[in-house]
Amino acid sequence: MQQIKPMRNIKELLKQMTLEEKAGLCSGKDFWNTKEIERLGIPSVMMTDGPHGLRKQEGDTDHLGINKSLPSTCFPSAAGLACSWDKDLINRTGATIGREAQAEDVSIVLGPSVNIKRSPLCGRNFEYFSEDPYLSSSLAASYIKGVQSQGVGTSIKHFAVNNQEFKRMSVDAVVDERTLREIYLASFEQAVKDGQPWTVMAAYNKVNGSYCSENKKLLTEILKEEWGFEGLVMSDWGAVNELDDGIEAGLELEMPASGGMGEKKIIEAVQTGKLSLEKLDQSVERILKIVFQAVENKKQNAAYDKNEHHKIAREAARESMVLLKNEDRILPLRSVKSVAVIGAFAKKPRFQGGGSSHINPTKVDDIFEEMQKAALPTTVLDFAEGYSLDRDEADEQLISEAVELAKKTEIAVIFAGLPESYESEGFDRKYLSIPVSHRVLIEEVAKVQSNVIVVLSNGAPIEMPWLDQVKAVLEGYLGGQALGGAIADLIFGLANPSGKLAETFPKKLAHNPSYLHFPGDGETADYSEGIFVGYRHYDTRDVEPLFPFGYGLSYTSFEYSNIQVNRDEIQDTDSITVSIKVKNTGDMEGKEIIQLYVRDIESKISRPEKELKGFEKVHLYPSEEKIVTFKLEKRAFAYYNTKINDWHVETGSFDILIGSSSREILQRKTVYVHSTTVIPNILTRHSTFGDLMDNPVGAEIMKAMQSQANPSNNEGLGAGMQEMILGTTLHNACVMSNGAFTEDMMQGILQAANNSKIS
Amino acid sequence: MQQIKPMRNIKELLKQMTLEEKAGLCSGKDFWNTKEIERLGIPSVMMTDGPHGLRKQEGDTDHLGINKSLPSTCFPSAAGLACSWDKDLINRTGATIGREAQAEDVSIVLGPSVNIKRSPLCGRNFEYFSEDPYLSSSLAASYIKGVQSQGVGTSIKHFAVNNQEFKRMSVDAVVDERTLREIYLASFEQAVKDGQPWTVMAAYNKVNGSYCSENKKLLTEILKEEWGFEGLVMSDWGAVNELDDGIEAGLELEMPASGGMGEKKIIEAVQTGKLSLEKLDQSVERILKIVFQAVENKKQNAAYDKNEHHKIAREAARESMVLLKNEDRILPLRSVKSVAVIGAFAKKPRFQGGGSSHINPTKVDDIFEEMQKAALPTTVLDFAEGYSLDRDEADEQLISEAVELAKKTEIAVIFAGLPESYESEGFDRKYLSIPVSHRVLIEEVAKVQSNVIVVLSNGAPIEMPWLDQVKAVLEGYLGGQALGGAIADLIFGLANPSGKLAETFPKKLAHNPSYLHFPGDGETADYSEGIFVGYRHYDTRDVEPLFPFGYGLSYTSFEYSNIQVNRDEIQDTDSITVSIKVKNTGDMEGKEIIQLYVRDIESKISRPEKELKGFEKVHLYPSEEKIVTFKLEKRAFAYYNTKINDWHVETGSFDILIGSSSREILQRKTVYVHSTTVIPNILTRHSTFGDLMDNPVGAEIMKAMQSQANPSNNEGLGAGMQEMILGTTLHNACVMSNGAFTEDMMQGILQAANNSKIS
Repeated sequence: MQQIKPMRNIKELLKQMTLEEKAGLCSGKDFWNTKEIERLGIPSVMMTDGPHGLRKQEGDTDHLGINKSLPSTCFPSAAGLACSWDKDLINRTGATIGREAQAEDVSIVLGPSVNIKRSPLCGRNFEYFSEDPYLSSSLAASYIKGVQSQGVGTSIKHFAVNNQEFKRMSVDAVVDERTLREIYLASFEQAVKDGQPWTVMAAYNKVNGSYCSENKKLLTEILKEEWGFEGLVMSDWGAVNELDDGIEAGLELEMPASGGMGEKKIIEAVQTGKLSLEKLDQSVERILKIVFQAVENKKQNAAYDKNEHHKIAREAARESMVLLKNEDRILPLRSVKSVAVIGAFAKKPRFQGGGSSHINPTKVDDIFEEMQKAALPTTVLDFAEGYSLDRDEADEQLISEAVELAKKTEIAVIFAGLPESYESEGFDRKYLSIPVSHRVLIEEVAKVQSNVIVVLSNGAPIEMPWLDQVKAVLEGYLGGQALGGAIADLIFGLANPSGKLAETFPKKLAHNPSYLHFPGDGETADYSEGIFVGYRHYDTRDVEPLFPFGYGLSYTSFEYSNIQVNRDEIQDTDSITVSIKVKNTGDMEGKEIIQLYVRDIESKISRPEKELKGFEKVHLYPSEEKIVTFKLEKRAFAYYNTKINDWHVETGSFDILIGSSSREILQRKTVYVHSTTVIPNILTRHSTFGDLMDNPVGAEIMKAMQSQANPSNNEGLGAGMQEMILGTTLHNACVMSNGAFTEDMMQGILQAANNSKIS
Repeated sequence: MQQIKPMRNIKELLKQMTLEEKAGLCSGKDFWNTKEIERLGIPSVMMTDGPHGLRKQEGDTDHLGINKSLPSTCFPSAAGLACSWDKDLINRTGATIGREAQAEDVSIVLGPSVNIKRSPLCGRNFEYFSEDPYLSSSLAASYIKGVQSQGVGTSIKHFAVNNQEFKRMSVDAVVDERTLREIYLASFEQAVKDGQPWTVMAAYNKVNGSYCSENKKLLTEILKEEWGFEGLVMSDWGAVNELDDGIEAGLELEMPASGGMGEKKIIEAVQTGKLSLEKLDQSVERILKIVFQAVENKKQNAAYDKNEHHKIAREAARESMVLLKNEDRILPLRSVKSVAVIGAFAKKPRFQGGGSSHINPTKVDDIFEEMQKAALPTTVLDFAEGYSLDRDEADEQLISEAVELAKKTEIAVIFAGLPESYESEGFDRKYLSIPVSHRVLIEEVAKVQSNVIVVLSNGAPIEMPWLDQVKAVLEGYLGGQALGGAIADLIFGLANPSGKLAETFPKKLAHNPSYLHFPGDGETADYSEGIFVGYRHYDTRDVEPLFPFGYGLSYTSFEYSNIQVNRDEIQDTDSITVSIKVKNTGDMEGKEIIQLYVRDIESKISRPEKELKGFEKVHLYPSEEKIVTFKLEKRAFAYYNTKINDWHVETGSFDILIGSSSREILQRKTVYVHSTTVIPNILTRHSTFGDLMDNPVGAEIMKAMQSQANPSNNEGLGAGMQEMILGTTLHNACVMSNGAFTEDMMQGILQAANNSKIS
């Protein structure tokens, strides 16, 4: 845990600061820096965009990746990185970015981005980890720890429920409390608690009617009071509505500078008594803590080795890519004689997304060149452009050249996907399709060449109507500047693919749970699919995906056996240890991502078919086996109960499912968990006899009443009769009984039942 | 339109009534009657359960179909009747029930039931018409007019949003305004406006926090003020929470008597000033109107011919059944030598649902006997029970007898479906499956007999895992007392099936849109699937149903041609006439249900793929052709706009789709509709530049700004750039521009744009 402690006597400083200085500190100095106060020795600190590399601007500034920035290493975007499911790798990636930040005098890197992939259309999905909050939050914690291990801060973003670009600066995300807790906030929660980021970035949008930057429930009650966040909250760039309201709600820092508007608001608010000085002081104190923390951690003369970092980027890319299909084990290519390398991306790769994360790489691999390096000397590689990067329409000339080339070779590797204009911060996609030029190219080549391998570059799921026509698909996501080397390593078997999807690829856009509500009418984004996001939807509603969450192939094979639990019945205050044996049964070394899901077998409330509650990535040599263990605590079995405003485990049986993907469950074990929480259940006259039966005293009363009742005249209804009575309210029975069941009798029963101790 | 006018001098009567008499009139006299006031000559009127026949009780009373009632003709339940799509037939059915009511001295029949089939699991679905409000409301209007043509009143129910039995007496149906209007209220709206029912029955449940019986918005604002309902509102039996609050909200009559509690509440409320005397007088006035209307319309010595009514019930059943499958045109059976008639239902048919609509039929067809009558003399029919009606488990002995019989015959007709204990008022189903005894029977017989015909008796959709193993399926729904004759007519070709499904049969329960939210946690039923109910969901989300809405086969074939519209561009205040030619191209006379759907081709808001906006059923002899016309007005193109709280047509193109089912669209035409409604769109600082572009003055300003702007330094973003800018709010631009775009400039733009006249 990153220790956050005051490095100067902040209380003393506060006493010396004027109101204007305090207010000023709560708004940036310029686009990327906080204000200094020279007379008090308070320095300015710099922050820059991330998260997959530094975007440090020295000239014109902007927040959309428009103007130039200094070179830095471009790592795979989070969408890809998440597919590594590798906490250590992501930690090292973060540390590497932290070293570059130290070298460039940057104190805080603006990332990681942990918003949930609610729809595959969100333009910024490439920057986010997953549709699953557990995975997202775990990986984000690793990233944060990695960066911060270098004495550089992070800013987890965009807090919260910023899951679309359409009207992102004003839209109101309307989301129920349970969904907020279980999905959208959960993606931040563990990362904040475990990673302790220096800063949190408040999103542009509103959540349930209130702008995130002035949302007291989010910024103060949940983030600081519940989760214990000790750093500072800054706004997304220009996300402040009224800064004084923001400060009151728990925002500390407006970014960037607002031409003096922000500090003016604060000063006026303090002067009129709308904002207390205590509240402002609390904000300034948090800002000063982080400023001094940055200063204390600053390394002098820091530098880094670009080539070394490029190698790390290559490793990260290799681990992130997902082998989606490999018919006839066509991959890896070994002693192949001729390969047609098709597609403009092979020479001008798509390797990062657009917007604020768009950086200036230190260098970029030429994929074709990297393939030539990785191939055997006897393998001849030829290139055809296949499509133009300048337009979407199919180019007949380029396609025909590609087809001619593919006819002559043993194998064709086609590079396709989404051009940069298709996905970016700032706008959402409308379809899941790739450009028609890419699609037609694949289809035409596949007509003449039966050995087609498609390598994809894209930040989010696409449709694959051509899937049956090709033998292999390697999902490369946005692989960063070293994607070429990584792809070459994987295609030619110098490395074994080990990535697994951190999101579901749907067959059709219409199958996505948010389909009918995304992105909404511009005013409101209605999260009416609730907690059923991603595989929680596909699995629970039995909708077949194109590729399921957690799915990915390897060149080797793994065997799962011997699931063990240390206890099969616990209280929700206890924990369970689960172990499983995994063996590499193939002939190539490789890594396997073992996934643990929990299923509530029977529940009174609507719960997902299963939920990810653990994962581990292990390296195994051929024939090697390892035992992997998981620890499950209350939260693994709990849902968020809005009656008690807390996590709650419904007493009962739970399946522990261990698999190689969300849909390949290979081992399972059932355990029983007892709730230790009593949920008050007060009966009223509108409670049913069924409710009464759930109450121990009520059940006794019911039994007595039934033995007295005369069940004559019951014709033709049989089994249903009992159910009908259980569904009747006491009040209704009272009215309908024509005096047989009096108001007094009812009140007596209610009193007796409500006085009994029940759970 | 049924004229509702005062038949006595009600104002004068009111003057003479005491507070106690007034209050008393607002609560029933007993279970089935209103109070009389002898001194003022105000009589009591009787009402009884319906809607598919009379349940007049003379002995013990109840509202769950438990105790005996006088014999009356049992017509098909609404779920089946709706599949006739036959307004005339339903009108005649209503009139027939009205005649029986006159004969039995009943003044008001409690029906029709028009709640929308949100989930196939709702235990009371058999009593409801459809998943589509247009169809449901049209048919309900015909039923109301039919009953009321006999001087007998109706009570359209259960108003409103009573779509489940689970916790129906206390659950809060939480449903957004657009969904309420477009789906759940729409099912009542046209029936109320066009049918003018004497009474409306307020449901048990709450809607958006308020009990229906005290829901002012529903009972007064919408029902009476918007829709112009002139009759009285009564409570469902025992559905009153506090009667004084009910009267205040627009309820008039509490049913049944509440042992004096109700009137006491009213008296107290008037005495304390909580309820005004004017309000009470309004209620009493409405009650008196209906009481006197009933008296005026009473026919002396009314009687009816049971056999004649049985014949009408047979016709209704015949028109209601839906031929779902007919491989190799196995039906109708003509010169077949031997038929195995299998299944206990063939001799003890399931023909009505359980609960308050459960009546005592005048007689019930024995299906086996009716089949013998309808078959050629040369056809030998044998019977095997197949399953026991007493238990769900497969009975090996009975199955083996059935299998042996089926082996020896040319054809097997299996009667299966849902036993009465599976679906009823008072509780919901949990699964879509039929009893295992029925399923195994079908599967086992199909193993030895390739010509299997399944005839189903059930009130709502079931799963059919055995569908591929049988040649034909006739969906009989709950066919009423004359179902046997109807089935025989259809199976032996004495009549041609002409029913079409009024609801979707899903492949799996999990595909239903309400699946994850139905029936909710007991406190709240969250209608989060919104307007996407039934085919609106399956079509829009591209989920393949087992059988789609509007689907049904015939023994003949029909050809659709020559779609015509009288205008292809209108204002929303105009109407369009659409015509289509339909021809019987087969060799048997038959009826076809022609369906008209409207699709909004492009919309800023989320709309269903298509919506039913017209239907006609036509009879055609072989080679005969008819032209069917439809008139479409504003409502056919409109959605409910919650900004203006009114129906609104978004200017643009609409497809008019005509088909033989929701998924067999055979003819189409595109028309353009111009909105005449201006929706105010006030721009604020949180509006985007995209919003500004939608404003004519704003667009001019944007153009001027863009021509001034210096687009230098824009690297690598191209096409997305414009989109990103359009997605930026003016406020954000103001903050981020570092003084280039000032607050004053922004305010100037907003003022100019908001002062312009725009739509």
